[in-house]
Amino acid sequence: MVTKNKSKVRVIPLGGLGEIGKNITAIEYGDEIIVIDCGLAFPDTEMYGIDLVIPDITYLVNNKSKVKGLFLTHGHEDHIGGIPYILRQLNMPVYGTKLTLGLVKSKLEEHNMLSDCTLIEVKAGESVKTDNLKIEFIRTCHSISDSCALAIQTPQGVIVHTGDFKVDYTPIDGEVIDLQHFAKLGKQKVLLLMADSTNVERPGYTVSEKIIGENLTRIFGKAKGRVIVASFASNINRMQQIVNSSLHYGRKVAFSGRSMEKISDIAMELGYMHLDKNNIISVDDIDKYPPEKVTIITTGSQGEPMAALSRIAYSTHKKISVQKDDLIIISASPIPGNEKLIARLIDELFKKGAEVVYNALEEVHVSGHACQEELKLMHSLLKPKFFMPVHGEYRHLKRHKLLAESLGMDSQNIFIMETGDVLELSRNSAKMAGRVTSGSIMIDGLGIGDVGNIVLRDRKHLSQDGILTVVVTIDKESFTVLSGPDIITRGFVYVKESGDLLKEATELVKEEIDKCMDKRITEWMVIKSNIKCSLGEFLYNKTRRRPIILPIIMEI
Amino acid sequence: MVTKNKSKVRVIPLGGLGEIGKNITAIEYGDEIIVIDCGLAFPDTEMYGIDLVIPDITYLVNNKSKVKGLFLTHGHEDHIGGIPYILRQLNMPVYGTKLTLGLVKSKLEEHNMLSDCTLIEVKAGESVKTDNLKIEFIRTCHSISDSCALAIQTPQGVIVHTGDFKVDYTPIDGEVIDLQHFAKLGKQKVLLLMADSTNVERPGYTVSEKIIGENLTRIFGKAKGRVIVASFASNINRMQQIVNSSLHYGRKVAFSGRSMEKISDIAMELGYMHLDKNNIISVDDIDKYPPEKVTIITTGSQGEPMAALSRIAYSTHKKISVQKDDLIIISASPIPGNEKLIARLIDELFKKGAEVVYNALEEVHVSGHACQEELKLMHSLLKPKFFMPVHGEYRHLKRHKLLAESLGMDSQNIFIMETGDVLELSRNSAKMAGRVTSGSIMIDGLGIGDVGNIVLRDRKHLSQDGILTVVVTIDKESFTVLSGPDIITRGFVYVKESGDLLKEATELVKEEIDKCMDKRITEWMVIKSNIKCSLGEFLYNKTRRRPIILPIIMEI
Repeated sequence: MVTKNKSKVRVIPLGGLGEIGKNITAIEYGDEIIVIDCGLAFPDTEMYGIDLVIPDITYLVNNKSKVKGLFLTHGHEDHIGGIPYILRQLNMPVYGTKLTLGLVKSKLEEHNMLSDCTLIEVKAGESVKTDNLKIEFIRTCHSISDSCALAIQTPQGVIVHTGDFKVDYTPIDGEVIDLQHFAKLGKQKVLLLMADSTNVERPGYTVSEKIIGENLTRIFGKAKGRVIVASFASNINRMQQIVNSSLHYGRKVAFSGRSMEKISDIAMELGYMHLDKNNIISVDDIDKYPPEKVTIITTGSQGEPMAALSRIAYSTHKKISVQKDDLIIISASPIPGNEKLIARLIDELFKKGAEVVYNALEEVHVSGHACQEELKLMHSLLKPKFFMPVHGEYRHLKRHKLLAESLGMDSQNIFIMETGDVLELSRNSAKMAGRVTSGSIMIDGLGIGDVGNIVLRDRKHLSQDGILTVVVTIDKESFTVLSGPDIITRGFVYVKESGDLLKEATELVKEEIDKCMDKRITEWMVIKSNIKCSLGEFLYNKTRRRPIILPIIMEI
Repeated sequence: MVTKNKSKVRVIPLGGLGEIGKNITAIEYGDEIIVIDCGLAFPDTEMYGIDLVIPDITYLVNNKSKVKGLFLTHGHEDHIGGIPYILRQLNMPVYGTKLTLGLVKSKLEEHNMLSDCTLIEVKAGESVKTDNLKIEFIRTCHSISDSCALAIQTPQGVIVHTGDFKVDYTPIDGEVIDLQHFAKLGKQKVLLLMADSTNVERPGYTVSEKIIGENLTRIFGKAKGRVIVASFASNINRMQQIVNSSLHYGRKVAFSGRSMEKISDIAMELGYMHLDKNNIISVDDIDKYPPEKVTIITTGSQGEPMAALSRIAYSTHKKISVQKDDLIIISASPIPGNEKLIARLIDELFKKGAEVVYNALEEVHVSGHACQEELKLMHSLLKPKFFMPVHGEYRHLKRHKLLAESLGMDSQNIFIMETGDVLELSRNSAKMAGRVTSGSIMIDGLGIGDVGNIVLRDRKHLSQDGILTVVVTIDKESFTVLSGPDIITRGFVYVKESGDLLKEATELVKEEIDKCMDKRITEWMVIKSNIKCSLGEFLYNKTRRRPIILPIIMEI
């Protein structure tokens, strides 16, 4: 031990609390920091034009020399999606299981930075040591293979981070959650538990993935033509089950959609999915087989407009179009916010003549997160001294706190924290100890953080009522208007439908400018502000709309 | 009978098929047309800045002299919300039950047009005659009081339109659905059934409204302080139950939110809600009573940012703020698309320290629409010869068709139609017979239909990447640039964060213009197009964004 035994452990969630996505947590002891996960979040509806959101890691960058490594629980985007952006600012070794690293690798390749990064594979059951800490990888079940919880042994005690998990006694890959290991940790005493709160509102148990396979096989049995299944590309066990159902009926399998092709390749290469090459066909060749011998596994289960299934539905897919007798299965449930997109997609598929099966009708999807009874099991195995609910919006964290209390935990020992809060722990105590810089970095195209609140506010405003540009050229010597004012609009009204509105508006602006010229006002700001004011009022009275008004004065 | 017996009946849905909202149907026989309902729809997420959508009634306007009246099934916005806009184009008498007309009246008052309109009250069980048609109002149950189905007796047979309905054997107001009347019609033979498809995906029965009352009283019993209940203002039976639960515990009731105040007034005045004046308190006075003696019934159950509950949550309500021990009940379920807004609202209320109860935790809301078993009951009572599923998106209509087939109906006799399709019926036959003009009219502020697809496309584009305006003043005689080019952006990048991007862009535009000047190009379109082209490419390469580029050339 290099550091004095008396250092406290600091646990700092830098994302993922009070929000869904961009999970990242720092654990600091003395002069060491380890980082757990580094995910991205998808933009809120208010984040107009934003592609992705990543966590602000200023705190880690400011403590660069302390950071020992990034430890990954599993390979979902909300746990690994931020890595390419973060490693550019802070290059640290990345530890994870084989599949998780396989997905990270492909991501880093796309960003052309794989050669600069260090990826270190760890198997479930193994551990990694730093000077003062020991990080154990513990097998869990989730909707992606090779998921792990992490137990971090610190000089003050053990911290357990469940990652995302569910308790599945009959997982498809046979990799049952390592309950014994959790029990052993509980026996030895756990200082702090950080546990997944996603499904805490749901009573009972999450159904085993295996049930979905049985349902799929039954539904496949009714198909007269092709079966097209949309699912999350990362759900490799689901993919395996779709493959199994297909083989059961002698169907060949085609993969459609970039991420589906990519992840199925990685999964097969690394041994997480088993499918004989003879049974794989290219999307180019599907028409060479009788429809009842073809399954297509595709992206687009969330109704994403550019994903394969939407392109199939709206007839913009180059190679696949809906045929009579197609049976389409949406083996996923809507991520909140996507409900309407998915409903529209299902409508379109029905209209094109396909049969569509989705979760409202048949159980063709199951969550990857623990429901109440599974959470109780985890709490009861680990019996932690302190507890911090993680992965969830505020109401989830709050419910998870109540759940822990219902198991007898002291409410003083439970910490509902926000991103950036610091929890300081010793062997016998835990307390909130200030905050560090944290937040969201928005990514728009190539820009990382160059779009902020003012730009977003403008985009929202533009989306509501459009913009109206007023241009005038003025001779600043003689105070005369040389050209204009001209009004050009976008997103405001149909010029043809607007009657005399814009003509009247132009007249109004002309008067306003003439007044300023007469008064010899040379302060352009004043003229602009006068134009904005009177034009804004005029337009609001006429239309009840408030477009952005952009007065531009060209002076000669 | 004025018209020859041989005229066919034409049924023309002008809205509400393949969509949720703006329900309106025309029934035409000889030289008579009657209209059933006239609703509005709320804009899709793609309809940037649009407030409301109403049906296109060109067909009715073109056949003005035939139109005998508007017959209303119930007072929900998706059935009456279009009336003020439609009556301006086509003034016809409006028939409906007392509460329905009470709500229409208040709407027409707001639009200052009540004195020009004819409202004729009809009681459930009564009927209205035109020359050739007889329209019977039949009591149903729904999430608003005084709902009716309509049976239209035509010389070719009876057409039954269920309106929105559920089968509630224990409704709060004692007004049980008139199953006997439906049975009688079925016995006499029904030519065509048009039935509500909203809940056709749900098996079983919709729970009785009464159960919700029992649950509310139980939950109220746990409240230590104030109870704040958010619900749909139009759900008067729900309001009555909230009132009953409040009185049970000696609580006074305050109404908060414009539509809640308005509709509770109308409901009490017309006798649809019973609450002694002594037990009503103003929102201004709530602090004069002990918290455990106060209930606030409020709007905002959908997380609408401007509604009372959101203003309470985000501390922008002038009179109500969240207090310790407040129990807040969201007695509604999310309308698709509102899930995220509501989740954020619940989070905020929890954060402010309130206890929040919502449908994920307790049964505090029930649907107003029939589930599968209720639909089967209606089909079995009426045994129609022909069937047209209505009120639903395409998948609902399709599922409803399958449900009818499962009851033995011939699939040839079932018509899944689109808005604008015409169904022509005689005593023994039904067939699709062309289409009439139909569609959506978008309302934005005071503008009715002045925003179309180009404006929406621009608003979408603006919301994604913003706008970049390039202005230059040119002397058209000498081919010289007198001022500019200047670049002004909104919603594109933070100017401060963008480094030299805009400087480089300005240089590029300057070169482009100089080239054109050198070549003596006087066609401004060419110059503008060149600027758009090269600037667009430059910006895309630098940022991967495609703002709207608006080149403006001022000539002198």
